[in-house]
Amino acid sequence: MSLVIIRKSAPAEIWIQALAERAPELIVHVWPETGPVDEVEYVLSWAADPGVIAGFPNLKAIFSLGAGVDHVLSDATVPSDLPVIRMIDESLTRRMVQYVVHAVLSRHRRVEEMRANQAQGLWKRPAFPDLRVGIMGLGEIGRACAQQCLALGYQVSGWSRRGEPLAGVEVHGGEQGLPMFLSRSDVLVCLLPQTRETAGILSRDTLGQLPKGAYLVNAGRGEHLVDDDLLALIAEGHLSGAMLDAFRKEPLPSDNPFWTAPGVTVTPHIAGWTEPSTAARHVVEAIAALRAGQQPRGVVHRARGY
Amino acid sequence: MSLVIIRKSAPAEIWIQALAERAPELIVHVWPETGPVDEVEYVLSWAADPGVIAGFPNLKAIFSLGAGVDHVLSDATVPSDLPVIRMIDESLTRRMVQYVVHAVLSRHRRVEEMRANQAQGLWKRPAFPDLRVGIMGLGEIGRACAQQCLALGYQVSGWSRRGEPLAGVEVHGGEQGLPMFLSRSDVLVCLLPQTRETAGILSRDTLGQLPKGAYLVNAGRGEHLVDDDLLALIAEGHLSGAMLDAFRKEPLPSDNPFWTAPGVTVTPHIAGWTEPSTAARHVVEAIAALRAGQQPRGVVHRARGY
Repeated sequence: MSLVIIRKSAPAEIWIQALAERAPELIVHVWPETGPVDEVEYVLSWAADPGVIAGFPNLKAIFSLGAGVDHVLSDATVPSDLPVIRMIDESLTRRMVQYVVHAVLSRHRRVEEMRANQAQGLWKRPAFPDLRVGIMGLGEIGRACAQQCLALGYQVSGWSRRGEPLAGVEVHGGEQGLPMFLSRSDVLVCLLPQTRETAGILSRDTLGQLPKGAYLVNAGRGEHLVDDDLLALIAEGHLSGAMLDAFRKEPLPSDNPFWTAPGVTVTPHIAGWTEPSTAARHVVEAIAALRAGQQPRGVVHRARGY
Repeated sequence: MSLVIIRKSAPAEIWIQALAERAPELIVHVWPETGPVDEVEYVLSWAADPGVIAGFPNLKAIFSLGAGVDHVLSDATVPSDLPVIRMIDESLTRRMVQYVVHAVLSRHRRVEEMRANQAQGLWKRPAFPDLRVGIMGLGEIGRACAQQCLALGYQVSGWSRRGEPLAGVEVHGGEQGLPMFLSRSDVLVCLLPQTRETAGILSRDTLGQLPKGAYLVNAGRGEHLVDDDLLALIAEGHLSGAMLDAFRKEPLPSDNPFWTAPGVTVTPHIAGWTEPSTAARHVVEAIAALRAGQQPRGVVHRARGY
C-alpha cells in the first residue's frame, strides 16, 4: 500500500521526509510517479486535475494539502463514498491567527493613518475607538482567531452555519442570524470554507449591513467576495477599507483595481500555509485511525461541502 | 481629606467622574485648585513641576498617572518617606500588549515589504523566517506581552534586573545575563522603567549584540535609546529597522532623522494610555489598603527606581 502526493508546484521532498519520520513503513510517491496504481490507498492532494484521483481503484481516503477541500469536491469523477479529509495543522492555524490578529490590530490602532502621517513628518495621535470583531466561519482556525482576539481585549462575535456556542463569543447561526452578526462587526473577518452556499457571500447585500466605517479582512477565498461590491462600498464611504489575502484570480492581475483602491491592502495569499513537519502527524494519525476502523479527525461532510 | 489631580494637559473630568463612582466620599480637586492644602492626603500626578507635591504637608501617598514614576522620583523636593505608587491599569496593559503584538507580527509577517510590493503592483511572497522575541522588562506589562507572544507561537525570552522565572519564557537576569539574552532576540522589545541604570541602555554596545537583521521595538522611554547608535546600526545593515513610540523630545521635531530613516516606523507615543474608568479602581483600592494599614499594589521601590 502506498500514498501519492499530488501538487502542482513546490518540491515534495519535505513532505516525503516528514512522512518518513512518522511512518517509515509508508511507501510515498510523487505524482506523476505512482508505482502500481492498485497499491495506492491514499492521496495527499492540492488541485489535482479532474480524473487523476479517480484513476486509483483502491483508494481508502483523500487528504487535502490545505484546510480547503473544494478542489477535491469540485472533481465530479472522485468516488462519492471515499472519505475526504481536510488538513488540520497547528502551524497553518497559528499562521492564520497571526495574519488575522495583525489585520485587526493594524485597523484598530490606525497603523496606516500613522504611516501616512509619518510620510509627512506629522506628529498626530489618532483616536482609537473600541471595535468589535466579527468572525465568519468557526472551524479550527476561526475558533483560534476568536480566542486570540478575546485575549487582546476585543469584543468578538461569530457566525457559522449551525451557530454552535463558543466560550466568550456571541455566536449567531444561519441565515437568520446574519443581519444581527453583521450589524455588530466593525471588523469582519472571513474564514469560511468555499462551498456553494458561501460563494459570493461578501456582497453589497451583506457588507452593506456592516456598521459605517467597517473594515473587511478576507483570509478565506477570493470567490467569497463580490469584488465590485466591495470597491463600490469603499468608494461610497460605507466601508473604510479591507485587507485581502485571497482573490478570484491569482496572482492578482496587474490591472486589478484592488492594487490601488484607497484603504485596501493586498497580500499575496500568505495568511497561512501547511507545514509538512507538523501536518504529517495529522496524515499519519488519520491513516492509523482508518486502519483501526475509527473515524479520523477532519473528515469532510460531503453534502455540506466542508 | 482630599485628592488632587495634577496633569499638564487633557481634561480631568473623566477622572473626577471615575473616582466619584468608586469612592463618592473622596473629595477631588484639580491642580491648581487644591482646597485647604493641609487636607490633601493624595496626589494623582503626571509630571508635576518640582516642588508642587512637596507643597502638601499631610500627604499619605503619591500616585503616578502612568506606569512610569521617574517624573516623581526625579523631583528632589518630594519627601523620601512617602509611598510612590505606579499606575496598574488593565486598559493600559491591554493597549501596550496590542502595540507590542502588532509590532512583532508586522515585522515577522513582513508587512512593510508587502506594502512596498503593493505600491509597485508586485505579487511576491516574502519568506517568513521564524523569529525569537526578546522582552526587556518583565513587570505587569512585559509579562502580559510575553504571554501573548507565546500564545501566537513565538519563542520568547525575557530580561530583567532580577531574572525572576516566568512560565514558558527563557529569562535572563542582570548584567551577566544580557549578552545571552541579546544574542537570541530577533525582535527586541523594550518595556523597561526609566531609571538611572536603564538610561541609554539601547546603545551600540547592546544593540550590536543582537543577531544580524534584528528589529527594535521601543515602547519604553525615549531616554532608553541612544538615537545615533540605532541609526548607525541600521545604516550599517546590522539592524533591519525599528518601531519607536517614545522619544527624547516629544513631539518628535520635524528634522529628526527617525522620520525618514529606512525601516523606522514612528508612532506618536500611543502604545498605551491610562483609562480612568478602569484605573480608578487601582487608586481607590490602594487608598483603602493604606487606610487599613496594608501594603497597596504598585508601591515603588525608591532606591531601585521602579
